[in-house]
Amino acid sequence: MDQQTLNRLTQGILFTDMYQLTMAQLYFKAGIHEQRAHFDHFFRQYPNYGGHKAGYCIYAGLESLLDWMKEAHFDDNDLHYLAGEKDAKGNPVFCPEFLDWLRKEGNFRKLTVKAMAEGRVIHPNVPITMVEGPLAMAQILETTLLNIINFQTLIATKASRIRHSCGSKLLMEFGLRRAHGYGGNFGARAAVIGGCDYTSNVGQSYAMGLPPKGTHSHAMVQTWLALGKSEYEAFQAYADLYPDNCLLLIDTIDSLKSGLPNAIKVFKNLRSKGYEPVGVRLDSGDLAYLAIQVSKVLDEAGFPKACIVLSNDLDEMTINQINIQIREDAPRNGADPQKVIDRLTYGVGTRLITSDGQSALGGVYKLVALQVDGKWVPAMKFSNSIAKLINPGHKTAWRIYDSRGRATADLVGFADEEPASEEVLELHHPVEKDVMRRLKRQEISRVEPLLQTVWDKGGRTRPAPSLQELKANRTADLNYLDTGVLRMHNPHIYHVSLTTKLLDAKVELIKKFRDRLED
Amino acid sequence: MDQQTLNRLTQGILFTDMYQLTMAQLYFKAGIHEQRAHFDHFFRQYPNYGGHKAGYCIYAGLESLLDWMKEAHFDDNDLHYLAGEKDAKGNPVFCPEFLDWLRKEGNFRKLTVKAMAEGRVIHPNVPITMVEGPLAMAQILETTLLNIINFQTLIATKASRIRHSCGSKLLMEFGLRRAHGYGGNFGARAAVIGGCDYTSNVGQSYAMGLPPKGTHSHAMVQTWLALGKSEYEAFQAYADLYPDNCLLLIDTIDSLKSGLPNAIKVFKNLRSKGYEPVGVRLDSGDLAYLAIQVSKVLDEAGFPKACIVLSNDLDEMTINQINIQIREDAPRNGADPQKVIDRLTYGVGTRLITSDGQSALGGVYKLVALQVDGKWVPAMKFSNSIAKLINPGHKTAWRIYDSRGRATADLVGFADEEPASEEVLELHHPVEKDVMRRLKRQEISRVEPLLQTVWDKGGRTRPAPSLQELKANRTADLNYLDTGVLRMHNPHIYHVSLTTKLLDAKVELIKKFRDRLED
Repeated sequence: MDQQTLNRLTQGILFTDMYQLTMAQLYFKAGIHEQRAHFDHFFRQYPNYGGHKAGYCIYAGLESLLDWMKEAHFDDNDLHYLAGEKDAKGNPVFCPEFLDWLRKEGNFRKLTVKAMAEGRVIHPNVPITMVEGPLAMAQILETTLLNIINFQTLIATKASRIRHSCGSKLLMEFGLRRAHGYGGNFGARAAVIGGCDYTSNVGQSYAMGLPPKGTHSHAMVQTWLALGKSEYEAFQAYADLYPDNCLLLIDTIDSLKSGLPNAIKVFKNLRSKGYEPVGVRLDSGDLAYLAIQVSKVLDEAGFPKACIVLSNDLDEMTINQINIQIREDAPRNGADPQKVIDRLTYGVGTRLITSDGQSALGGVYKLVALQVDGKWVPAMKFSNSIAKLINPGHKTAWRIYDSRGRATADLVGFADEEPASEEVLELHHPVEKDVMRRLKRQEISRVEPLLQTVWDKGGRTRPAPSLQELKANRTADLNYLDTGVLRMHNPHIYHVSLTTKLLDAKVELIKKFRDRLED
Repeated sequence: MDQQTLNRLTQGILFTDMYQLTMAQLYFKAGIHEQRAHFDHFFRQYPNYGGHKAGYCIYAGLESLLDWMKEAHFDDNDLHYLAGEKDAKGNPVFCPEFLDWLRKEGNFRKLTVKAMAEGRVIHPNVPITMVEGPLAMAQILETTLLNIINFQTLIATKASRIRHSCGSKLLMEFGLRRAHGYGGNFGARAAVIGGCDYTSNVGQSYAMGLPPKGTHSHAMVQTWLALGKSEYEAFQAYADLYPDNCLLLIDTIDSLKSGLPNAIKVFKNLRSKGYEPVGVRLDSGDLAYLAIQVSKVLDEAGFPKACIVLSNDLDEMTINQINIQIREDAPRNGADPQKVIDRLTYGVGTRLITSDGQSALGGVYKLVALQVDGKWVPAMKFSNSIAKLINPGHKTAWRIYDSRGRATADLVGFADEEPASEEVLELHHPVEKDVMRRLKRQEISRVEPLLQTVWDKGGRTRPAPSLQELKANRTADLNYLDTGVLRMHNPHIYHVSLTTKLLDAKVELIKKFRDRLED
């Protein structure tokens, strides 16, 4: 099989779990495959990276999913394969009538998708993507929706934290070599939404309309050395070819004793020809100590504007620690800490692209309502874990802003509720029944509906937004958060609440089933 | 851009880091782009999952890489894009001569790849993939090689540990919804090489020639409930459609009070029609406790052969703990623990497909030698970290089996050495200079060259092996290991050593550079 065929096959509509197809066939056989269903996508917990935990997430992946939905369908090849699938006794798993239905209706054109905008701040147990439409196809969408949005949200969240740790400095995603296969592409996209300026990933940069970024590797310097030449000559060759983009990796031999003096010689040559160097990169050793020393030497040599790119297993906590160390150590070394920090830029790889410490977002996709005779009937799931209870019913969600204009809570309720018109808004804890908050109308500056219809009548309801718009969504939303929620470690917990009506309905539904069990 | 074009673009030869292309152009300009180079791919540390650590890895991803290499080249679209890339001043990054060379020579047909076989046990600091050939294209291969083999090795290793924890029982990979985008496909492949029997991933199963597996979800039962019907009716509908594959998820309402009695009713109906049920699935709650209870009830109801599928954030340690708990608790509950354990099968998702706790294998690809005037000149990298020192030179690796036939050490040395002919073999610690072991010829039963030429003269040197062969490689290699190395927690450390000749050369090279630095 050639790569094109293989990718088409494994990344099209068969990029799904087997049980989606066997369940869809069961709905078909029961004649309920086109019954209108409502599925909620939400996550239950913020990423916990081990020693530290997020206080918010950044929604991402939606537009990638919509791109996929646009073309996904069962073609002859897919159907031929499914027709050949046999059970343990050698009988076909799928019947011809169902396969015929898949041929005609096996696409996502009849679904309606409501969702957050990418880049926006999101919280646990609030629906972030809602799918309505014929049961069978809404079911089949589950795996791909979860895969794409869970992963991109995970990475955008990690990127947002790392962006926070580096302030407004240049931040580049360098992780493709440690990414999970082709997942590196969606990962680079999510990293940009979450706050990275650029990525080293060439193809994905092309797809996003961004210039790909990079420096050079140790191999280049090693090559010159193996040829009997010097690190200086390697640097000079690089500078001659890229005089306007001269950023030199100085740790192949020894950063302070060899790389830095050689870089400065090259920088002086460059300047004599009318060019300004970009800077140097440090990729090993004590990055804070080295940054201070390198910064001093660059200043003394007349290159106060040359930047220092740090790389090597960076993440938000390491960058924080490096900055703290520089603030403590630079004065003892006769350097201005702020000046050292201001010239730093960051290349972040493995720990960003794999969300080190929490490598999956546990987002789930749950049936919450089924339309029966034109009315939405809530669907419930109980299971043996209280944490796995869902919020049933045909719902939506709002963000409540307080009198300061800050986001104070996300509220989940039925789609026909109007929290903005309540005199006193009651916000109930989603699990603990008697924990609640009351907000008077004058304490509320805005009630914002969180989910918009993004896919309806066969396609997008509006053009795909630009990456810049998605990045701007994040910046705007972070400004609405209390800074305690942004804290990298042990953040303040943002309120997620249910309306009185939803809580009552949930409690009643649980009671009904518990009663039935006791019978 | 349609999905096919996008995937072609982002998964072809531009699935790489920008600096590979800028360095390749530098080699081109320096006239050394076709100089023969030797790169080693190796990893430095076993995966450390937090509370526990691996004592070996399972090599995987090679055949996926070779498939990719076969077709990867710069087409008009790629070259047009690269021609348009501008630097900060608006000048083109790539010159026409280099792009023209890429058009003609920008493929991997002139490389030679030597590698381990997939499924084999591998250890740190031993080359597992070696690439020889023209410098520029060997350089450009770096990102994709690392991406594919690092990730698949990571997942095959995790799968191998999980397989170890479940003995010979059925083990299914269910993680697509939590995988990193399309990385879920390579992940499923690696999971099978590492020991999973099947995956739920439909497209990837198709590509691998395996039947995709699955049960059903909560949504199916919820649908019946929302329609005013019962869990029993949902189960019965499923059984009617899939009488030979009736595996019922029993925790939508309550596993013991509702799911299990309803499943048993359906199983009895099935049997009366001449079918045997497959079993039940538990997806929440205390899985060990529930498995004991469910096992007893199934036995009493006359279904001693019905299996119990466990799922819900399983990994090797959780499965171990569940088995220990069953051994302790089953007798107190009047059940035979071995009988309970024997009927368990496992669906493993998130923690396998993302290698929870260690989400990347830090494999690197380092220039170790360059051919100058027909002779291999060792290439060195020093950096500011002793741990980042490489083993220089045109090398290879062997596995040494002791008189019991067990693998006792991996040995790295120069390609022209012949350790099998040594009277007394000296095995040196790779970093600590005076730590060594001596093995007399009679203490050695076999010296096995580890790397085979798998790609040469434009393509594979042999047909791609079947998945069954790759799985068999793993089983064979695990049998050669001391069981202490297989231990899930705090494993015995396997020996990785250098030959005397390689150690001497390395020490000399370091000394030469240190001396030069002191000048």
